[in-house]
Amino acid sequence: VRLALEEAGAAYIDVARLPAGEGGGYDAIRTALDGKLGGLRPLAPPVLVAGELVIAQTAAILHFLGQRHGLAGTTEADAWGALQLQLTIADLTSEAHDTHHPTSPALHYEEQKNEAQLRAKAFRELRIGKYLGYLERVLEANTASAGRHLIGAGLTYVDLSAQHVVAGLSYAFPNATSRVLADTPRLAALCEAIAARPRVAAYLASPRRVPFSDGIFRMYPELDPTG
Amino acid sequence: VRLALEEAGAAYIDVARLPAGEGGGYDAIRTALDGKLGGLRPLAPPVLVAGELVIAQTAAILHFLGQRHGLAGTTEADAWGALQLQLTIADLTSEAHDTHHPTSPALHYEEQKNEAQLRAKAFRELRIGKYLGYLERVLEANTASAGRHLIGAGLTYVDLSAQHVVAGLSYAFPNATSRVLADTPRLAALCEAIAARPRVAAYLASPRRVPFSDGIFRMYPELDPTG
Repeated sequence: VRLALEEAGAAYIDVARLPAGEGGGYDAIRTALDGKLGGLRPLAPPVLVAGELVIAQTAAILHFLGQRHGLAGTTEADAWGALQLQLTIADLTSEAHDTHHPTSPALHYEEQKNEAQLRAKAFRELRIGKYLGYLERVLEANTASAGRHLIGAGLTYVDLSAQHVVAGLSYAFPNATSRVLADTPRLAALCEAIAARPRVAAYLASPRRVPFSDGIFRMYPELDPTG
Repeated sequence: VRLALEEAGAAYIDVARLPAGEGGGYDAIRTALDGKLGGLRPLAPPVLVAGELVIAQTAAILHFLGQRHGLAGTTEADAWGALQLQLTIADLTSEAHDTHHPTSPALHYEEQKNEAQLRAKAFRELRIGKYLGYLERVLEANTASAGRHLIGAGLTYVDLSAQHVVAGLSYAFPNATSRVLADTPRLAALCEAIAARPRVAAYLASPRRVPFSDGIFRMYPELDPTG
């Protein structure tokens, strides 16, 4: 979500990272989750407040931002295709999370390490390649952009999401991901091109960027053996 | 998806259930997954073909059908709220699937039974109540329909999806789900009301309905102990 806002040059306030004294932090998140912002109550972050609208769920937020900021393609088919790809990337993201929490979100990783070994093995050997290979084929088939974008001729929010998920996978599973990227050159090139876009590069180098650490993508070396 | 098409009274062909001799079955699914229907290639079923549009991912299909058939509310906020709730129901559905496949989609349930016990326990004790309790609070807050619909004053595709996921949970986890539903009376009443709608009831009693059995929602008694 932050990538889309930054690429669009949209003015936004990242409430979760704002100090509590300025109306941010935990209390602000609690206010949103308690449904006190108006509109439909969210179950979990992220939550976007845009004027009267309050929208939760990453894919819904991105689809809204994509349409508002010209990042959802130019045709109706583009817009539905973008949502379809975003949901597929969301599936991949969810599976990446479950590698370190395969049995219960209420238990620590250390309490489910053995199960995590099994899940991570299947994820490395089957799922990363399946999803990234799929994105590669989508790029290959997209003659409108000569394989440089996932949807249509230009940039969409899905290109940003692809860069984000590949960056997350490269953080959490550097060995397995680099092996897959060697076979998905278009996707690797897309991710490099996205990261080099001026606004994205400025964001990634800024303190506004939230580093990967203990969220969805986590680096446990035992879950990503070499070779 | 079938529920939305049936409630809308839309004419549709369920290609996967059509005999191969009439252009259906496995080969038809393969054709769709190979991207030979035009448009964006899907990664997995379901896939909707509507005129020139080819859309995959359940939530995207439902959002499209909802807007086309007047099942996405009446305001912009309704439409975004419907997508948000659909994605939350999709998260619940995905977690229900992972109770019987917690480590690898490529292995049989019998090969991950021990891990399934752990995942199902957390799902029964924490997740069913969390999600259905959330839907109950959304109903409670929706004064526009006096708590009878999730979004706005009338029926939306999300009401149909709520009925579907609760039916699936009641099939796979009858004991745990009935305990939760005792505390979510509005949601229980919504599900009964949906199942009693003439078109839905006719569909549920017809051979067009795909029974729960070996898909996302599966009934393994050892994953849903009594008491």
